[in-house]
Amino acid sequence: MSIITLTTDFGLKDGNVGVMKGVILGIAPQARIVDLSHWIAPQEVSEAALILRRALPYFPPETVHVVVVDPGVGTARRPMAARLGPYRVVGPDNGCFTLALTYAEERGWPVACVHLDQRQYWLSPLSHVFHGRDIFAPVAAHLVNGVPLEALGSPMSDPIRLSLPRPQRTATGWIGRIIHIDHFGNLSLDIGEEHLGAAPQIVVRLGNVEIHGLVKTFGERPPGELIALYGSSGNLIVAVVNGNAAARLGAKVGERVEVITV
Amino acid sequence: MSIITLTTDFGLKDGNVGVMKGVILGIAPQARIVDLSHWIAPQEVSEAALILRRALPYFPPETVHVVVVDPGVGTARRPMAARLGPYRVVGPDNGCFTLALTYAEERGWPVACVHLDQRQYWLSPLSHVFHGRDIFAPVAAHLVNGVPLEALGSPMSDPIRLSLPRPQRTATGWIGRIIHIDHFGNLSLDIGEEHLGAAPQIVVRLGNVEIHGLVKTFGERPPGELIALYGSSGNLIVAVVNGNAAARLGAKVGERVEVITV
Amino acid sequence: MSIITLTTDFGLKDGNVGVMKGVILGIAPQARIVDLSHWIAPQEVSEAALILRRALPYFPPETVHVVVVDPGVGTARRPMAARLGPYRVVGPDNGCFTLALTYAEERGWPVACVHLDQRQYWLSPLSHVFHGRDIFAPVAAHLVNGVPLEALGSPMSDPIRLSLPRPQRTATGWIGRIIHIDHFGNLSLDIGEEHLGAAPQIVVRLGNVEIHGLVKTFGERPPGELIALYGSSGNLIVAVVNGNAAARLGAKVGERVEVITV
Repeated sequence: MSIITLTTDFGLKDGNVGVMKGVILGIAPQARIVDLSHWIAPQEVSEAALILRRALPYFPPETVHVVVVDPGVGTARRPMAARLGPYRVVGPDNGCFTLALTYAEERGWPVACVHLDQRQYWLSPLSHVFHGRDIFAPVAAHLVNGVPLEALGSPMSDPIRLSLPRPQRTATGWIGRIIHIDHFGNLSLDIGEEHLGAAPQIVVRLGNVEIHGLVKTFGERPPGELIALYGSSGNLIVAVVNGNAAARLGAKVGERVEVITV
Repeated sequence: MSIITLTTDFGLKDGNVGVMKGVILGIAPQARIVDLSHWIAPQEVSEAALILRRALPYFPPETVHVVVVDPGVGTARRPMAARLGPYRVVGPDNGCFTLALTYAEERGWPVACVHLDQRQYWLSPLSHVFHGRDIFAPVAAHLVNGVPLEALGSPMSDPIRLSLPRPQRTATGWIGRIIHIDHFGNLSLDIGEEHLGAAPQIVVRLGNVEIHGLVKTFGERPPGELIALYGSSGNLIVAVVNGNAAARLGAKVGERVEVITV
Repeated sequence: MSIITLTTDFGLKDGNVGVMKGVILGIAPQARIVDLSHWIAPQEVSEAALILRRALPYFPPETVHVVVVDPGVGTARRPMAARLGPYRVVGPDNGCFTLALTYAEERGWPVACVHLDQRQYWLSPLSHVFHGRDIFAPVAAHLVNGVPLEALGSPMSDPIRLSLPRPQRTATGWIGRIIHIDHFGNLSLDIGEEHLGAAPQIVVRLGNVEIHGLVKTFGERPPGELIALYGSSGNLIVAVVNGNAAARLGAKVGERVEVITV
């Protein structure tokens, strides 16, 4: 199995994602390439970290996940690759693997990181502005061709990690924040089943709005109603049935949310 | 041949389509996955029905078409799969296969529907909000792996059908409506060659605009001119040469259109 | 290796790109299909020419590049295919291969063009408005199946070429223009390393803005700063670090730019 996934902030109009695929298929014709997202907000490393983390468990072992959200391209920031238990990741060392690393560590998986410095596995000449094409695509292709991680770079033990705020316990529940707004305008919170599991009843407070109680799914309530429910990754979601909660509430990523457990 | 197509209202920024592909490739590594559209308007089941119907004849036999436009996910609405002559479809039983069913029936193809209820072919645990990932992707993968439709669920004979308005014959021609507006702003009508075939000359009335006569293609007239012509599926199209008819006319899906045959 | 790339102005919401893939896989099940861009501005042949030219060198030999930006579909404009050294192209004869042809000729590659006129390699019936589906997709599939170019059409020696303005030498440097604005709002100029190679220092003038000096990459300067640098294809780029130069400057494709070499 030779799956390579791609996550970038490139959008799809300029052909750059296609170019990365051309490079991959030139080296590893058998690779199966899957787009995770090319609509990460420009330079939003933390959004890429989240999208990758959520996708990880749904891919077969040996999948290589490439992330290119890379505001530091061409500077001293290191290009890196890592083995995270059954998976492999390739991209800039800028924190985009923070949540994938945590996910692996929480499961006790072996983790090994390398600083990519073996230029014979890169394209040449090397551009200063498109390492997705010149470093990360070819390295991913060599990985699915069986080149061992250790041959691609030198061991490194200190990959950069984003310091992401975590939900805080309060006397009455939790304070967290909106970590993602999806295509439907649903708001994903960093508070989830692992925090609230036993609560018989909850109230979600967001700005001056309160949502009382959890539903299981959208269709339980009439269109237009504001609801709270668990999303497909176990996070708490605030949504409007058949509507757009972000637009309705003017909500933004990073905004504070309080959950009261009663 | 193991083609699976995907049609959703997920958009492409959140990684959910990629996750479905990961699930499919984990079960059926040989599957060839083709995106039909992930830009169906949120919850617009009838738009998904149309996009699927138009694509059907252009795919090889045994293709499995997955549709996930699913406002009722997690409620009592049934997950379903069907054989429609040479094709197979998988998705929620909410009307999204209405036009594909009609297409098959008009051709006298054998049709067999099942209510998907065999959980051993699903992911577990099952989310209440993402059956695309947990039911439809794995079921499609098992289908291309050769699992028979009958093993995946219980026979059902009453799939939900949307009651779509049909064009009405009038003394002077037809009354119909706009059923789709494409990326270029071209307006697709539900009136087509099968209604107008013999008419020597026609007039299209839309709001207070009249278009006299049909052209064969865009380049017959100068840029900026409003034209009517048959689209690539045989429907009547209203377009502006090198322009955007929807923007020019302020047209919307569902709007009434009159065609006078003279 | 059987790679087919697709470049269109279709967008991705209507299913037309998916339909082309269905047609290709029906004829050439082994084809690997790569999307270059489906977000070419409607009818902007010159944009398609540029995206294809930039992608060319990054695909393996024998790749077939299909372009469908085709305002003249169904008129007398010829459908064409060509061999350009190791690559093949398929699409309308409207100038979309201008830059690819020049690229091949500059390298001394053999170039052979045919006017596609062998209908046995097309779908039937032939629509007047969707040759991407009915001519170009099937022809590309037959090409990767090994049908020789010469079997698909009659030799033609005069493919249409866009007359694209070229940068002009001045007493103090070069006058050029913006030829592309990418997803990040970076401005690509038609002035590049081949014009400026030896200049020790440059000034870029765009409207009433001046940028002094070149940087190697984005991260050399603080967020928000306006910079000039060489892009990944060797063109000069005007950018805002972690920002959007097109929005900041109100810049448009075609706009005049002056570069002073000092």
